[in-house]
Amino acid sequence: MANGKFITLEGIDGVGKSSLVPCVNELLGTYGFKTLITREPGGTPVAEAVREILLLKWDEEFAPATELLLMFAARSQHVTEVIAPALNRGVWVICERFSDASYAYQSGGRNINAAFIDSLAELVHGDYWPDLTLYLDIDVELVRKRRLDSEDDRIESAGLEFFRKARERYRELANRTPRIKQIDASRPLSEVKDEVRRLVREFVKVSTSK
Amino acid sequence: MANGKFITLEGIDGVGKSSLVPCVNELLGTYGFKTLITREPGGTPVAEAVREILLLKWDEEFAPATELLLMFAARSQHVTEVIAPALNRGVWVICERFSDASYAYQSGGRNINAAFIDSLAELVHGDYWPDLTLYLDIDVELVRKRRLDSEDDRIESAGLEFFRKARERYRELANRTPRIKQIDASRPLSEVKDEVRRLVREFVKVSTSK
Repeated sequence: MANGKFITLEGIDGVGKSSLVPCVNELLGTYGFKTLITREPGGTPVAEAVREILLLKWDEEFAPATELLLMFAARSQHVTEVIAPALNRGVWVICERFSDASYAYQSGGRNINAAFIDSLAELVHGDYWPDLTLYLDIDVELVRKRRLDSEDDRIESAGLEFFRKARERYRELANRTPRIKQIDASRPLSEVKDEVRRLVREFVKVSTSK
Repeated sequence: MANGKFITLEGIDGVGKSSLVPCVNELLGTYGFKTLITREPGGTPVAEAVREILLLKWDEEFAPATELLLMFAARSQHVTEVIAPALNRGVWVICERFSDASYAYQSGGRNINAAFIDSLAELVHGDYWPDLTLYLDIDVELVRKRRLDSEDDRIESAGLEFFRKARERYRELANRTPRIKQIDASRPLSEVKDEVRRLVREFVKVSTSK
């Protein structure tokens, strides 16, 4: 049986990743693929416990390395227990965020050396990179305005400059990485969904014709 | 004001590190040094939350990378919030376990590449290596017999072979690292304490005469 494919959605907080997951999932269903929907950080009981630590507001500051290592610790469990086994039994995995988010947030946002993140990715998931990444791009001010009514967690409350740097890194990654497709998420949701569907159809066509 | 010194105690679980901490602390007190006693994993609220995850028995297996990254995430907070600030204000820090334990357990015991642990140590604590490490060496079977009455946590219940490999790595490290002093911990506690005191006195003499 062929392996499943690994599709991720990326973008800064509030850009609308969660609302696009069902759209990707339904489309894959029409092809008859089995799918698994998951998100980071989290996905296993241990990884969810790490997620709680990451998102709680503590009285102490997080050192940049702490945040990075907790993200990859959660990812390690998530890949080993959930993502890799699903892909290996032919399931298509749809995941909100993966290592691209660590480049954007912890390297772009918190200035950790990208080469170090390369080594962590190699240690934690080796060849399990996404096959397709839908990067939802949006102006940081615009997304903050949209979410004024919801309460921020620890990372979300990091300030505009942090998110600007994360967005910039996301755009750089998208520019130089063929699997990452950049989508203008400032448009009406119906248009964004249309483009997501078009990109997923194109990906299915290419990846199943091999 | 001169910086404080960083003294660690290392050795496999149950070898008696905790019971030697007061002995080191009292001796340092006689010199008039201010001291801080701490232990890993833990030492800050975030690091203690990570410790809980590490020691709980979960229904899922820990991937070796997960354990390693959680240990260093906790260490990152511990160094940044507690150890480095104390040393910088002239306090002598006495700590049970530090990065040597990651080489012993996660590299020796779980076969993670030691070079990768070098990079993590560099990222997380840079130059904050211990100035003196008291490594308590003991036969694995002997220490397991001593602790038959206490209940093991997740790591302690890993099995004899794991601890044999950890001990072997500790001994290798002690052999090639001048700051690590190997102490035969199979002897009566009073003799072990005498040797610990002798080593600490020697260290104080050398490090305060510079």
